[in-house]
Amino acid sequence: MPIEAGDVVLIRLTDDHTFLVVAHAGKKIQTHRGIVNLDDVIGREYGSWAPTTREPTLLLRPTLEEMIMKVKRQTTIIYPKDAGMILLKLGLGPGSQVLEVGTGSGALTLALAHSVRPGGRVYSYDLREDFLALSRENVERVGLSDHVEFFRRDGQGQLFRHKSLDAAVLDVPEPWKEIEPLREALRPGARLASLNPTYNQVEQMVETLRRSGFVLVETMEILYRRLQVLEGRTRPLQHMVGHTGFLTFAACAGAPPAL
Amino acid sequence: MPIEAGDVVLIRLTDDHTFLVVAHAGKKIQTHRGIVNLDDVIGREYGSWAPTTREPTLLLRPTLEEMIMKVKRQTTIIYPKDAGMILLKLGLGPGSQVLEVGTGSGALTLALAHSVRPGGRVYSYDLREDFLALSRENVERVGLSDHVEFFRRDGQGQLFRHKSLDAAVLDVPEPWKEIEPLREALRPGARLASLNPTYNQVEQMVETLRRSGFVLVETMEILYRRLQVLEGRTRPLQHMVGHTGFLTFAACAGAPPAL
Amino acid sequence: MPIEAGDVVLIRLTDDHTFLVVAHAGKKIQTHRGIVNLDDVIGREYGSWAPTTREPTLLLRPTLEEMIMKVKRQTTIIYPKDAGMILLKLGLGPGSQVLEVGTGSGALTLALAHSVRPGGRVYSYDLREDFLALSRENVERVGLSDHVEFFRRDGQGQLFRHKSLDAAVLDVPEPWKEIEPLREALRPGARLASLNPTYNQVEQMVETLRRSGFVLVETMEILYRRLQVLEGRTRPLQHMVGHTGFLTFAACAGAPPAL
Amino acid sequence: MPIEAGDVVLIRLTDDHTFLVVAHAGKKIQTHRGIVNLDDVIGREYGSWAPTTREPTLLLRPTLEEMIMKVKRQTTIIYPKDAGMILLKLGLGPGSQVLEVGTGSGALTLALAHSVRPGGRVYSYDLREDFLALSRENVERVGLSDHVEFFRRDGQGQLFRHKSLDAAVLDVPEPWKEIEPLREALRPGARLASLNPTYNQVEQMVETLRRSGFVLVETMEILYRRLQVLEGRTRPLQHMVGHTGFLTFAACAGAPPAL
Repeated sequence: MPIEAGDVVLIRLTDDHTFLVVAHAGKKIQTHRGIVNLDDVIGREYGSWAPTTREPTLLLRPTLEEMIMKVKRQTTIIYPKDAGMILLKLGLGPGSQVLEVGTGSGALTLALAHSVRPGGRVYSYDLREDFLALSRENVERVGLSDHVEFFRRDGQGQLFRHKSLDAAVLDVPEPWKEIEPLREALRPGARLASLNPTYNQVEQMVETLRRSGFVLVETMEILYRRLQVLEGRTRPLQHMVGHTGFLTFAACAGAPPAL
Repeated sequence: MPIEAGDVVLIRLTDDHTFLVVAHAGKKIQTHRGIVNLDDVIGREYGSWAPTTREPTLLLRPTLEEMIMKVKRQTTIIYPKDAGMILLKLGLGPGSQVLEVGTGSGALTLALAHSVRPGGRVYSYDLREDFLALSRENVERVGLSDHVEFFRRDGQGQLFRHKSLDAAVLDVPEPWKEIEPLREALRPGARLASLNPTYNQVEQMVETLRRSGFVLVETMEILYRRLQVLEGRTRPLQHMVGHTGFLTFAACAGAPPAL
Repeated sequence: MPIEAGDVVLIRLTDDHTFLVVAHAGKKIQTHRGIVNLDDVIGREYGSWAPTTREPTLLLRPTLEEMIMKVKRQTTIIYPKDAGMILLKLGLGPGSQVLEVGTGSGALTLALAHSVRPGGRVYSYDLREDFLALSRENVERVGLSDHVEFFRRDGQGQLFRHKSLDAAVLDVPEPWKEIEPLREALRPGARLASLNPTYNQVEQMVETLRRSGFVLVETMEILYRRLQVLEGRTRPLQHMVGHTGFLTFAACAGAPPAL
Repeated sequence: MPIEAGDVVLIRLTDDHTFLVVAHAGKKIQTHRGIVNLDDVIGREYGSWAPTTREPTLLLRPTLEEMIMKVKRQTTIIYPKDAGMILLKLGLGPGSQVLEVGTGSGALTLALAHSVRPGGRVYSYDLREDFLALSRENVERVGLSDHVEFFRRDGQGQLFRHKSLDAAVLDVPEPWKEIEPLREALRPGARLASLNPTYNQVEQMVETLRRSGFVLVETMEILYRRLQVLEGRTRPLQHMVGHTGFLTFAACAGAPPAL
C-alpha cells in the first residue's frame, strides 16, 4: 500500500533520529542530515527508502509509541510507559466508547482513538480551547480524527453529554470533583484511570472513589530505564525520568442488590 | 448485551478478589466467599450483580490486563508493564499480521490477538506441544481463538511459513538464532520486540540486530510499584518485582539503495 | 590479634551462609552444615579457618553491614541502604554526641555507636522497655555498649536529658511532636535525620521542620537491587524490597540575627 | 570550638545553596547572594551566622556527604548513595588500613579517610599524577591529609607497597587485573569493594574473584530519588540519576585447610 498524499510517515535518518511528517505534495522537510522532498515520499511503500540531499532515508509507518512521543505539545504529555498500562487496564477494543477528561496536548487522546478502532469513539473534554485546538491538530495529523470528538468543558462537576460509556480517563488536577458526573456517564462495570503527579491527589481521589462505590481501586507508578547496549560496555543509561505520575485505576459499580 | 453461555466473565468478590471464568451452564464456582452458580450469571449484563451463597458478586467484562494476569501458566508470563510497552511499540492495529516466537503460556499471544482485531492474525510458534496446547486453551477461554494460529517450531533458525508480516515478538533464550528466518518473514519496516532476562542475551541480540540491518534498536527495562493508599497512611508497597526482563525493540530495514 | 572469649565473630559456611556469634568458651553452634565448637574459635585469628564437624569454616570480623542485618529483631530494622546514607549525612565522627529517638531493635543504634568511636556517645530513647532491653543486648553482643546509653521515654514532647548534641535520628510515627524538645537538645548547626514510611508523615515532618527554623531540609528514598552474576547469565534479581521508608534530613539553625 | 583559620566551613545561603570553603584570613567569597568576608567567619562558632553584604549566612561544619559532593572534580565521582554502602560493607573503623586503587578525584578517598580516624590510614593509588594532585588538594581542604598517602601506580598487576591491609576499594576499568597484587596486600578476612559501570566488568570481576578464592561475593546497584515535599503537593522529583555503577563486594579468604 503506497504512501498517499496526506498520510503520516515517520522519516528515519541514518543516525536514528526520526521525524513525524504528513506527506503533503510539494512540501520539503529540512533536517540536520539533508532535505527531504515529500514528493519523493508520496507513492513509495512504507518500509522503503527515499533520498534526501545527503543520504537515503527510511520511511516507516509510525507506531502508537512514536505518535505519542511526537505530538506537538503545550503541556506535559502522557509517557508511553504509562499509556501502555492505561490501555491494558481500560478494557478497550473495537467499538468502545471512552470519555477523556483533560485533553491536554492530545497524546493520550490519540492512544485511546487508536485502541477503539473500528467503530469506537473518544469524547475528549478540556477547559481550554487552545488545548482542544492543539489536540485536534495532533489527532488529525496521524489520521485518527474520525474516532474523536472534542468538547469544551464549562466547569468541573457538570454533567457530560454522554451515557453508558465503557471507560474514562482523567488527567486533571482535581479528578475527585468529576466523580459524580462520571458516574452518570459510565455504564456499570466501566473502567476508569486517573493520572496524577502528587500523592495528595492520589489519596483524595482514591478515598472519593471508594466512597462513591467504585471497586478494584488500585494505584501504581511505572518507571522505565533505557540501556546502552554495546559489545563489552553494556549498562543502564545515566539519565532517567524519575517520576511522571501515579496511575489510579477503578471499576464503576452500581449499588449491590439486597441479597 | 447480556452474558451468554461460553462468554468470559470476571467475577469480583467484595474483598476485591477476582476469578476469570467461562459462563458454562450448569457449572458452579467455589470461592472463599461462597459458591457462584453460573446459571445465575448467564443472561445478566456485564456490570450487574449476581448472588453467591454468601454475598452479591459483581460481573465484569475482563480487561486485557486481567486476561493476561489470569492465564493458566506453566511458564513465567509476560507482565502487563512489559506487554503494554510492547503493544505500543509494535505498531499493531486492526488487520495486522504478527509473528510470535516462543508461545509459552500464551499471555502475550492473547495480548497480540486482542490488538489486531478485527481482521488481523497472530502466528505463534513454540518448540513444545504442551505449551501450544496450554496457550490454545488460554486464548480460547477469552474468546480470541479466531485471531491466532499455533505452530510447532521444529528447530531454531528454520524458515517460518509466512511472509510480509507486520511485526514479530520473540520470547526465546537465543533470539539471535531466529534473526535470519525473521528477516524472511517480515515486510520492510516491520517492528520487532524481544524479551530477555539477562544482560548477556540483550547484548548478543542487539549486536546481531545491528549487523543484520535492523534500525531504531533500543533496549529498556520497566519497573512498577504499587501504592498502599489509605487516608493519612499512603506509601509505596514493600513488595515489588525487581526484574522480569529487558525489552529490545527494532525496525526491519532492507539494504539502503545507492544514492 | 586473636579472637578472645566474648568477641563477636561472623562464621561463614561454604555455602556463604553466615552466623553472628559471641565466642563463649564451652558453647557450640548448631548449623545446617555441622556443629561449630566455639572453643575451636577462641585463640584463632580473624580471617583464619576453624573446623566444624563437616567442613572448614571461615572466621570473619563482622562489618557494620553484617552487624545491622544480624540484630535480633522485634521490629522492622533499618536497612543498610538507608543507614549508609544517614551516617553520611549526620556529620558523625570520633567524639560525636548523638540522640536517637525510637530505639526499636537497636540496628541503627549500633550503626551510630560504631560511627562515634572513640569518645562519642549515643543517647537512645524508646517508649518501650522491651525494645530497650533487646537493643541493649544487640549492642552489647557486638561490643559497642560503652558508646550507648539507653533511656525510657515517658512521652512524646518532653525534654531530653541532654544539651548541645551534634546530631539526632528519629524513627517514630509522629516525629513532628519531638521537634521542640529536639531543638532544646541540639547545638546550632546539628544535623537531623528522620525515617518515615508514609508520604503523609514526610509532609507533616517537613512542614514542621521548616516552620521551626530548620534548614537544608530534603527528603529522598533509596532503592537497591541485587544482581545474579553468572558467566553468560547475569541479570537483576527478581526479588527486591520495594519500600522501607523515606529519609528526611535537615540542619538545626537558630534565628538569624538582624543584619 | 570556634572556626580557626584553615578550617573547612560549609556556608549556607538563605536559598539553601551551599559553598564549601576554607577559612583563609583576608579572603572573600563571591556568591549570588552577596560577598562573604572570611575574616567575619574566623572566630565564630559552627552553627552561628555570619554577614554577607546582603543576608545572614549560616556557618556549618560539613558532613561527609557534603565533603563528597563538593570535591573539585575531573572525573565522575562516587555518589553518596554508593559511598554509604561501601563504608558499611568494608568493615572500617578507627585504625583500619585501607587500599584504594583508582584515586580519581578523591571523593571516595576522603570518605575512607574519614572512616578510619583516629589511627587509620588510606593508601591511594592512581596511574595519573594529575588525579593524585587533585585528590591531594580535595583531601587537604577538608582536613584529612594525615590519614591518606598517595602513590603513583606504575601499571596494573604490579605489587602494592603494603601488606596485611584490612580492606580495599577498586574504581578502575579492569579491576580483575589487580586481584593478584591485592591478595598479596590484604590480610585474610579483609573486605573488598569494586565499583563498575558495566555489567561486562561486573561479570569478569565476579568470576575472577570466585576463581581467586574470595567469598561472600555479591553485586548490587543502589538508586535514589528525591522528593518534592510541599503541603498538598508532595511528589517524587522528575529528575533522577538512572545509573552510576554496580557495587561488587567480597571477602578475602586464604585456602581452607584440609580437615
